[in-house]
Amino acid sequence: MPMKNLDDLFVHMLRDVFYAERQIQKTLPRMARKAQSEELREAFEQHAEETAEQIEKLERIFEMRDLKPRGTTCDAMNGILEEAKEIMSECEDKDALDAALIASAQAVEHYEIARYGTMAAWARQLGMDEAASIIAEILTQEKATDDKLSQLAETSLNQQAAA
Amino acid sequence: MPMKNLDDLFVHMLRDVFYAERQIQKTLPRMARKAQSEELREAFEQHAEETAEQIEKLERIFEMRDLKPRGTTCDAMNGILEEAKEIMSECEDKDALDAALIASAQAVEHYEIARYGTMAAWARQLGMDEAASIIAEILTQEKATDDKLSQLAETSLNQQAAA
Repeated sequence: MPMKNLDDLFVHMLRDVFYAERQIQKTLPRMARKAQSEELREAFEQHAEETAEQIEKLERIFEMRDLKPRGTTCDAMNGILEEAKEIMSECEDKDALDAALIASAQAVEHYEIARYGTMAAWARQLGMDEAASIIAEILTQEKATDDKLSQLAETSLNQQAAA
Repeated sequence: MPMKNLDDLFVHMLRDVFYAERQIQKTLPRMARKAQSEELREAFEQHAEETAEQIEKLERIFEMRDLKPRGTTCDAMNGILEEAKEIMSECEDKDALDAALIASAQAVEHYEIARYGTMAAWARQLGMDEAASIIAEILTQEKATDDKLSQLAETSLNQQAAA
């Protein structure tokens, strides 16, 4: 896959986030099952639904470009999700587990916020206005998810303090 | 390295960011050399200096914990930096190269913003107030760097549009 100019880089990043979102989609149900607080479980379930929609949105962008939807391995996302799986296996303190699940999910969100922020700017630059507005929609969802996770982190840590 | 409770998780994440910052420190000079715009080169050089200071700050937190400063492999950061190196080798369009360097640097910053945000909250929870305020300082720097990169991205893309 060439990465010689901005258009190549855009397609590379589209494949990168497509792969990343599908890995997240696979991992979120396990994170939801492991979550101790009802609120966190619901947040993960809701984000799993959003992720499914985001994957469809990315497929539309592939279509606009006459490209087959295809991912390219994203080692950064694999690294974040592998760490989440390790922690889910090892963490014995149930409150700390929620705090750790939130931390992993926020690392996921920030990766996506960085990538979609870049992709929206590049799509505009490349004259792909419809793609740019789809990406901006996804970016808004990712930022809202991150904010919600920050709130849940406060609640989760306050509960530990009270325990 | 155990990850059974919040204290273990804090130490794990301290080692994770310590490793990540040292990898960034190794890669930033190459990114600065590859940057086409003077402003971007200076931003990378300035962030290299900040990174050196941040590493010292993390060493102080290890000291507070009576731990030897030691990193643990962060696959997420390795993934981001490997991609940056690939792009630096492959990208032939010089303006697109700057856009790509900024994108990689913003992925780095967002990883750090996620991790330091979590660590600041965990340090407060664990009663490590001094560590919490050191981490908050680093977090402020990372956010400022990300904002600066967003501005440089706009400038870089506008220059391409005008070319």
